[in-house]
Amino acid sequence: MAVYTTVSSEALGVFLEDYDIGAALSCVGIAEGIENSNYLLTTPLGRYILTLYERRVNAAELPWFLGLMQHLAAHGLACPTPVIGHDGEALRQLEGRPAALTTFLPGRPVSVIDTIACHALGAGLARLHALGRGYEAERPNTLGMASWAKLLAACGDAGEQLRAGLTTVVSDEICVLVAEWPALDRLPRGQIHADLFPDNAFFQNDALSGIIDFYFACTDFLAYDLAICLNAWCCPDDARPQQALIQAMLDGYESVRPLEDGEWEALPTFCRGAAIRFLLTRLYDWGHTPDGAVVTRKDPLAYWRRLMAWREMAGVLKRG
Amino acid sequence: MAVYTTVSSEALGVFLEDYDIGAALSCVGIAEGIENSNYLLTTPLGRYILTLYERRVNAAELPWFLGLMQHLAAHGLACPTPVIGHDGEALRQLEGRPAALTTFLPGRPVSVIDTIACHALGAGLARLHALGRGYEAERPNTLGMASWAKLLAACGDAGEQLRAGLTTVVSDEICVLVAEWPALDRLPRGQIHADLFPDNAFFQNDALSGIIDFYFACTDFLAYDLAICLNAWCCPDDARPQQALIQAMLDGYESVRPLEDGEWEALPTFCRGAAIRFLLTRLYDWGHTPDGAVVTRKDPLAYWRRLMAWREMAGVLKRG
Repeated sequence: MAVYTTVSSEALGVFLEDYDIGAALSCVGIAEGIENSNYLLTTPLGRYILTLYERRVNAAELPWFLGLMQHLAAHGLACPTPVIGHDGEALRQLEGRPAALTTFLPGRPVSVIDTIACHALGAGLARLHALGRGYEAERPNTLGMASWAKLLAACGDAGEQLRAGLTTVVSDEICVLVAEWPALDRLPRGQIHADLFPDNAFFQNDALSGIIDFYFACTDFLAYDLAICLNAWCCPDDARPQQALIQAMLDGYESVRPLEDGEWEALPTFCRGAAIRFLLTRLYDWGHTPDGAVVTRKDPLAYWRRLMAWREMAGVLKRG
Repeated sequence: MAVYTTVSSEALGVFLEDYDIGAALSCVGIAEGIENSNYLLTTPLGRYILTLYERRVNAAELPWFLGLMQHLAAHGLACPTPVIGHDGEALRQLEGRPAALTTFLPGRPVSVIDTIACHALGAGLARLHALGRGYEAERPNTLGMASWAKLLAACGDAGEQLRAGLTTVVSDEICVLVAEWPALDRLPRGQIHADLFPDNAFFQNDALSGIIDFYFACTDFLAYDLAICLNAWCCPDDARPQQALIQAMLDGYESVRPLEDGEWEALPTFCRGAAIRFLLTRLYDWGHTPDGAVVTRKDPLAYWRRLMAWREMAGVLKRG
């Protein structure tokens, strides 16, 4: 959520005329994440998040994302809820970008990832999957398995520059994953978050208080979403996933929705796949982040190391 | 929001099966306010408020209240949003009572009422009035002017026990107010909160962060709602409204919606009316609060003193 687009106070004033939440008392850029421009907006009615959608988000898909957030919030997930204006619409334009206001959530990301956090996150992820069942429109995973070979090609020689031989190993791994990947009708599919990293989960007093940033959400295998979280949460040293954290997350998830046999079998494949997906987008961003953006580029090799580790430790991903 | 009804963990478990927010990690009674039973419920998905509706709330009206909260929240008011279950319903039964879950709001009531808080509250109230415009179903004010004579009769000799002569003075005042009260079509009407006391407004960093407890909301003169707030907020010593606080609240309100000439003329009447309304319900509660409830009875004479003060200080309620 880096700030790429600057919002003038004049443009903001005009934008807010479509709502009844009052004029801005303050509007401060939030320099977190990498996809959209986010501002913390305070008006006499409280705090909101103002989001301007940047390059990776397809404007035609925004109603699907905002609808999913409305559906999940209405059913009890603590997530940002789009605010609608006089015209009944949540989505409009600001500074030439699609833009929306959402509610502000209390809480903050955990400072230390421990088994308590991983258990709570696993349970929360399973709830998110359950709550998404009633939202029927599908959105294909544009960063799913079918996209990886093309994405690797688009990275050019960035991988080789980081580590000699990386491109060949990743290319071979993608071939293996494509062959192992389950058929669409074999495992439970539904709405997945697809980017539930620690900075997208807020906690208060060891309890999950909110989940944010649904702009990678899509329709895919539920267990693949769990594999993304196992990658994102259970490897605090960015080298090797820790067994205690993995077990806590799996236990938390299964306390809500026990995995099917086929999901257990696919989990090692999904974990390697999730490592590939973040390795590739980080690699792509490594060479493509615009100068002047308030954003820290993330290390692609952190996911290379996870990929190598998952190839050795598939054994820890079996039912206990 | 005193805790009148005890919820067993078995009953709560069954109740939560209609949602997908997980089982209770904790569920703690909140001993504030006087109307319903409220619990702070924590599940793996976050914090919620569980409300069981008690005696004064008419169950047939609950869909109107919950619908108003949904409408206001969707348009950007930070207020509790009813959570819907698998069946699409927000309202169900628990321990033989109508019950609903709503979202948890951050922030807390102000500890000291100052001009900053009164200005913010005035602006927030005007926004609430503006946001309510799109919610068209009307709910009569069952504690409005037409109810006061009967309510005074229902208090029996409670007033005389507190202060000799009170009943006659109040009875005469009600006659004067009924004569002065504007006709329905003379002034702007709409959805009013009707109970926006300091404990129903949450603040964070001097900004209003949330408005709660909509179970007295109804359709009435907008300026009468402002008069309720002038009574509730601008008299911190429970004796005489303070001119600086009054001015701050009026300025805050008018920064969003300037009052019409007729509203300025009616404001002294509305302020005395609002004092009567809370004097009467406090007097009624004085003799009717059930034993064993976790609630502090509120002093009716605090509103007797306001009534006496408003009779002397109508002059401060004129356009500056």
